[in-house]
Amino acid sequence: MGSTVDLVADIGESFGSWTMGDDAHILRTLTSANIACGFHAGDPRTMKRSIELCLEHDVSIGAHPSFPDLVGFGRRAMELSREEIATDVIYQVGALQAFARTAGTEVRHVSPHGRLGTLVGTDPHYAKGVADAIEQIAANGPTLTLLTMTGELEREAHARGLPVVVYGLVDRNLEDDGTLVSRRDPEALVHDEDALVERALSMVLDGSVTSRHGKRVEVTCDSLLMHGDHPSSVRTAERIRAALEEAGVEIAPFARPTAG
Amino acid sequence: MGSTVDLVADIGESFGSWTMGDDAHILRTLTSANIACGFHAGDPRTMKRSIELCLEHDVSIGAHPSFPDLVGFGRRAMELSREEIATDVIYQVGALQAFARTAGTEVRHVSPHGRLGTLVGTDPHYAKGVADAIEQIAANGPTLTLLTMTGELEREAHARGLPVVVYGLVDRNLEDDGTLVSRRDPEALVHDEDALVERALSMVLDGSVTSRHGKRVEVTCDSLLMHGDHPSSVRTAERIRAALEEAGVEIAPFARPTAG
Amino acid sequence: MGSTVDLVADIGESFGSWTMGDDAHILRTLTSANIACGFHAGDPRTMKRSIELCLEHDVSIGAHPSFPDLVGFGRRAMELSREEIATDVIYQVGALQAFARTAGTEVRHVSPHGRLGTLVGTDPHYAKGVADAIEQIAANGPTLTLLTMTGELEREAHARGLPVVVYGLVDRNLEDDGTLVSRRDPEALVHDEDALVERALSMVLDGSVTSRHGKRVEVTCDSLLMHGDHPSSVRTAERIRAALEEAGVEIAPFARPTAG
Amino acid sequence: MGSTVDLVADIGESFGSWTMGDDAHILRTLTSANIACGFHAGDPRTMKRSIELCLEHDVSIGAHPSFPDLVGFGRRAMELSREEIATDVIYQVGALQAFARTAGTEVRHVSPHGRLGTLVGTDPHYAKGVADAIEQIAANGPTLTLLTMTGELEREAHARGLPVVVYGLVDRNLEDDGTLVSRRDPEALVHDEDALVERALSMVLDGSVTSRHGKRVEVTCDSLLMHGDHPSSVRTAERIRAALEEAGVEIAPFARPTAG
Repeated sequence: MGSTVDLVADIGESFGSWTMGDDAHILRTLTSANIACGFHAGDPRTMKRSIELCLEHDVSIGAHPSFPDLVGFGRRAMELSREEIATDVIYQVGALQAFARTAGTEVRHVSPHGRLGTLVGTDPHYAKGVADAIEQIAANGPTLTLLTMTGELEREAHARGLPVVVYGLVDRNLEDDGTLVSRRDPEALVHDEDALVERALSMVLDGSVTSRHGKRVEVTCDSLLMHGDHPSSVRTAERIRAALEEAGVEIAPFARPTAG
Repeated sequence: MGSTVDLVADIGESFGSWTMGDDAHILRTLTSANIACGFHAGDPRTMKRSIELCLEHDVSIGAHPSFPDLVGFGRRAMELSREEIATDVIYQVGALQAFARTAGTEVRHVSPHGRLGTLVGTDPHYAKGVADAIEQIAANGPTLTLLTMTGELEREAHARGLPVVVYGLVDRNLEDDGTLVSRRDPEALVHDEDALVERALSMVLDGSVTSRHGKRVEVTCDSLLMHGDHPSSVRTAERIRAALEEAGVEIAPFARPTAG
Repeated sequence: MGSTVDLVADIGESFGSWTMGDDAHILRTLTSANIACGFHAGDPRTMKRSIELCLEHDVSIGAHPSFPDLVGFGRRAMELSREEIATDVIYQVGALQAFARTAGTEVRHVSPHGRLGTLVGTDPHYAKGVADAIEQIAANGPTLTLLTMTGELEREAHARGLPVVVYGLVDRNLEDDGTLVSRRDPEALVHDEDALVERALSMVLDGSVTSRHGKRVEVTCDSLLMHGDHPSSVRTAERIRAALEEAGVEIAPFARPTAG
Repeated sequence: MGSTVDLVADIGESFGSWTMGDDAHILRTLTSANIACGFHAGDPRTMKRSIELCLEHDVSIGAHPSFPDLVGFGRRAMELSREEIATDVIYQVGALQAFARTAGTEVRHVSPHGRLGTLVGTDPHYAKGVADAIEQIAANGPTLTLLTMTGELEREAHARGLPVVVYGLVDRNLEDDGTLVSRRDPEALVHDEDALVERALSMVLDGSVTSRHGKRVEVTCDSLLMHGDHPSSVRTAERIRAALEEAGVEIAPFARPTAG
């Protein structure tokens, strides 16, 4: 880490006639994107357009597989077997790969969405299911990089020798031990735009950030997770990028990490 | 054509806890299989197992994309735009390709399912949508063979130089002009097992079959579509295969046709 | 008719995390609302909130059943059997009735959505399927009023003695024979706000409107279909209501028509 | 309890082209039925036919609401909010009520399906969500009886004064404390048909059953849950009914319990 960082956000989360976020706008700030694959959002037309938008903006492409739950937007935990997790991920990644290939490009990474994305951080069962999928895909195909919050999937990837990149959550407050402040806690989220910019700089330049109680907490992040679902979050992302560039940080897609 | 024919059937049409047909049984008779891809049947676990069953039985693998209609099993016409047809097909084929690759094999053909499968025979709009998908997949990936009933998609494939194989419907009665007797007509289907065996032999050896009114009608078929959804249809398929073999016909997956 | 008119719009078309339209805003202008029932939009939470919003704004409640097609928003024709149409409508109406009853109110009308809504105007098959549903519901329950564009369902309702109200489409241009200018024609829609206001006045006060070629065409409408999906359409609806009130028209939910 | 018992099973769990169980057969043995409502199984046509079958066999009708998970058949836990549980139940019950009313009958009870059915036994959150639904339905409509395994929902119903009936699971082994042997334990299920008949008699006549370790455990059950998904389970149900009748037990739908 150090003077280079990837900026990533979830895109392609519209569905049919419903629009989510302003993808064309947030993409100008990004170097990577997580594209929804149809299970929580992202119908085939949206997936195709999302790939095309990434190509236009020279943004690296990742799959954003989810629990199969459109009405819940993949934000509700589901008690899936390890095989169900793995096969659901393979299905979704395969569908996105088809659109990437027809556009002449490729899927480079996989980042679990929503509740699956937090469960792979804390529950080995979900981490193993997702790692199984990536391992099976790699057996006769490309080795996709896992992009995850720090935790179980990171460990699982290291144990199996799978490439993994950890993203940092700029807008989530941390406890003194480095874990996320619970979503149910009123202090879960940092809203102040100046604070968000400062946290991003600190995470990338110092490898640390201040906990909710003022303690210095070490964080690893080769990528920062931005948001594009509201005009204000797009503006915040732009300010973060500008501040990082001004501080001499190179904004670039994460390097393909050496396995494990 | 002549002394070689492919035997194909739809498989992988179970969904979740629901079972459809006896795939392990019918596969012993087949040289190719059309595997459901999740839109009318075929969840990710079923797709994975279907690929594995094809490998066990040395059966060539095809995708069986459908209209997005689980409750209607893809048997109800849907008024999709050409782009909707193409992107729905790319999505489904990509998902199946992922399971084929993780199992160390590949998808070789694409055969539209149900109502989409009959509309591509009669309506250029649907034929073009499916051909668009195959063309876009071929641009940066494998050239998949189209497996279709005779008609518009066959013509469209020829016009674009896409490889296409025509399957014969052993159990559908024909009018004197070679078109199918309408499903609504009580004579639409041939039920008698001896007649079905005789029709199969005639279609493969003579390139013709008797219409409902006794006229000799020329038919092209490099593949015969079998059914595995009922024990009786599996038994009929076995009898057809035995009769063809006894008559010296080679039973083999269709050769990769020269484009167009 | 003359000095009374109902103003209706489709609401409750959000789904899960996706928002459609500004229901709270358009409801201030309406006297009736068509609420989505889960097949093209409208999850259970959205349905519950939509009923509550109608109660707050004293707006009469209708069900807005659709083809089962979330990704297509019910805008794509589906070839359903008459029994499929009837049972899909009964299912959706029943679900909405449950939310109406738990809130202490009732569903008063049923207005088919999207492509089903246009097909019941032109195709007796779809009209009969919807009429079957209303008739079966009425056999042991409330007699719901059908709210439809002029055409087959109107005729079918009259033939069966079912109450029916015809809505007028203010923003659709008409041919000289009173039929709608095709959606594919660039002149299908009237965009000019002044023209829309004038058309509404003419339809309600004179029972007629000018065709695209300047001919006076008679129209029946006891209800005018407004739109709430864009801020501009909400503003247009407000102007139409104000102009009607200024002209002395009473804005009120359609009276329960005498059957047939 | 004592000399009367209700026999109930889940029916209507087919979906579209897929068949589950032999409803017409098991219904001859039952006095009540839980009918799937579309979220885990049971499309509108199947719901309609299931109601008609219940009328033909004079079987009392219940709704069998589920988590929204077709591919998982409602057997996978989902982390729903209390409002999501309540509104999902109201939606499903309303849809079934519509088919009951069009057939001239009514829904009398509600029994949560699958994983929701076990969670309401052990987790107050899910129990409260379901009880909320029944309470809201009762506010302006019929008071539906809850049919549940013993546990949290039973307690919640008593606390709120909602009518509740507890069913017994003939084929599930119990621990000495009366709780179910875990599904993961090889001794979870009792398979021996003679043992199942004996357990049913003991549960109904003595209000007790032998635990896996031979201890006498008291059980409450006004209803016994049968299974109709396999020919063998239908035969077992028939044997149980015959043995109960021979022992002088009256087989009848559960009486409408006095609230709480």
